[in-house]
Amino acid sequence: MKDNLTIFIKDTQKTINEKLMLYLDTLSMPFRLKESLYYSIEAGGKRLRPILMLATSNAFKGNDNKIYPAAMALEMIHTYSLIHDDLPAMDDDDYRRGKLTNHKKFDDATAILAGDGLLTESFRLIANSNEYTDEQKVYIISKLSEAAGVSGMVAGQILDIEAEAKNISIDELEKIHLLKTGKLFIFAMEIGAYLTDLNPSDRDLIKEFATKLGLIFQIQDDILDVIGDEAKIGKPVGSDQEKAKNTFPKILGIDETVAQKKRYQREAISILEKLNVEKSILIEFVHLFSDRDN
Amino acid sequence: MKDNLTIFIKDTQKTINEKLMLYLDTLSMPFRLKESLYYSIEAGGKRLRPILMLATSNAFKGNDNKIYPAAMALEMIHTYSLIHDDLPAMDDDDYRRGKLTNHKKFDDATAILAGDGLLTESFRLIANSNEYTDEQKVYIISKLSEAAGVSGMVAGQILDIEAEAKNISIDELEKIHLLKTGKLFIFAMEIGAYLTDLNPSDRDLIKEFATKLGLIFQIQDDILDVIGDEAKIGKPVGSDQEKAKNTFPKILGIDETVAQKKRYQREAISILEKLNVEKSILIEFVHLFSDRDN
Repeated sequence: MKDNLTIFIKDTQKTINEKLMLYLDTLSMPFRLKESLYYSIEAGGKRLRPILMLATSNAFKGNDNKIYPAAMALEMIHTYSLIHDDLPAMDDDDYRRGKLTNHKKFDDATAILAGDGLLTESFRLIANSNEYTDEQKVYIISKLSEAAGVSGMVAGQILDIEAEAKNISIDELEKIHLLKTGKLFIFAMEIGAYLTDLNPSDRDLIKEFATKLGLIFQIQDDILDVIGDEAKIGKPVGSDQEKAKNTFPKILGIDETVAQKKRYQREAISILEKLNVEKSILIEFVHLFSDRDN
Repeated sequence: MKDNLTIFIKDTQKTINEKLMLYLDTLSMPFRLKESLYYSIEAGGKRLRPILMLATSNAFKGNDNKIYPAAMALEMIHTYSLIHDDLPAMDDDDYRRGKLTNHKKFDDATAILAGDGLLTESFRLIANSNEYTDEQKVYIISKLSEAAGVSGMVAGQILDIEAEAKNISIDELEKIHLLKTGKLFIFAMEIGAYLTDLNPSDRDLIKEFATKLGLIFQIQDDILDVIGDEAKIGKPVGSDQEKAKNTFPKILGIDETVAQKKRYQREAISILEKLNVEKSILIEFVHLFSDRDN
């Protein structure tokens, strides 16, 4: 079963990468902008958000073709957020996954514009897609802009910056993660469920589950920054601490952080138990996110 | 008649300002982000793009209520572009209209996020509006993202940066302005016409007219940078030259630039003559944009 999941993830990564590159090819834009966009899209993230959207749709017997445009738009938004987040004015990172960050490869102005462009184009992709009715397009755009906007991801970014070098509580840290990464995870799974016509009350359960999954993802990120393998995580161990980032281990210590992760896992699985559908793939994601080494 | 135009502009500015502030009030967001967004929205631009959209709708007997959400979204996109354009990595401006730019008032990270937030929220505003059918929302979002995206405004920004300190032709300069400012002018007037159900061939004429109006706006901007009154334009005379910006006077000299402006005016008016509607207000905009002193 683990093998099935690995195959599913690899296949989805391959397909989403191909579709994103094909889509960028259809857009006419200046050479330097194109280079910069391709660079960051090709940088090869894990494509977790598209994978979660596809997996949710699969769990409810959805049609993959209906999922891809929304998944691509979501990954474009995620990519824009990384480009802007790496800028000197923000996290000031020179490398991401062992490759130069966009502004180091090009320059700050190009990176700002590449991010702005990806963000804008993500909405155009949905609006111009042939896979959706107008009603579906409006729903997806409304949810995506809410998840990414000033009450969502952008709010999380600013709260994260404000919290640096301050002592915050676990509740505050959870809130930052919910906004900064959770909202896009929730969008991924909610839209996967919406496009398979899952009923609204089960959709709410999926959103609750996605919230926990986001926290598991983040807490494992923090754990890897303390006890991970540099070659695998693609950045120096301890870099969060060096940047005075707020992390679970900073607030709870590493042992309690590992215990907290187990609590999130149990909560995630107990939410799934309320769903009357085939959920084995979703349970596997809980373990995958908890146990990942990069 | 000039008085009517002045009243129309003042009324529209007042209404759009009020509606934008009311709309921002409905959004829940962190305090610092809110301060930063309000600061730039309140900075009180001329609201030219919303005014053009309203004026176009008025010329075709449209309903103002249908126009405002699209006009607000457009102004939010314009405001985001100014915030990002002023950043040290881009134009590096400390003042805009005599007030500190967003990143000088706050900091670079906040300004980047405020811009990202406004851009994202502009699409949410359309998607959640009560004034449009789903079909209209999709049309507006498609056109807005096209005008602002990598084949539109963002393309213009990067070409403008690349052209700095180079010698470019008038055709190249016109292309940069078409992308950088023209596309949003065209969007303004096209949507004003679309929402009043103007037929597609007249809509094409309106787009041609908006293109010329954008060039008139820009050429007058360049002229004011050479012969304007600092107190009125709100920045030092000669600042384009200092930044090695490509301008009409740099390429053509000031006398030929004034002659070129007259040619654009004649072309704009001859396009209007093909339209079988009351067009006096649109003709007035040609003169207003040509003769403005700030």
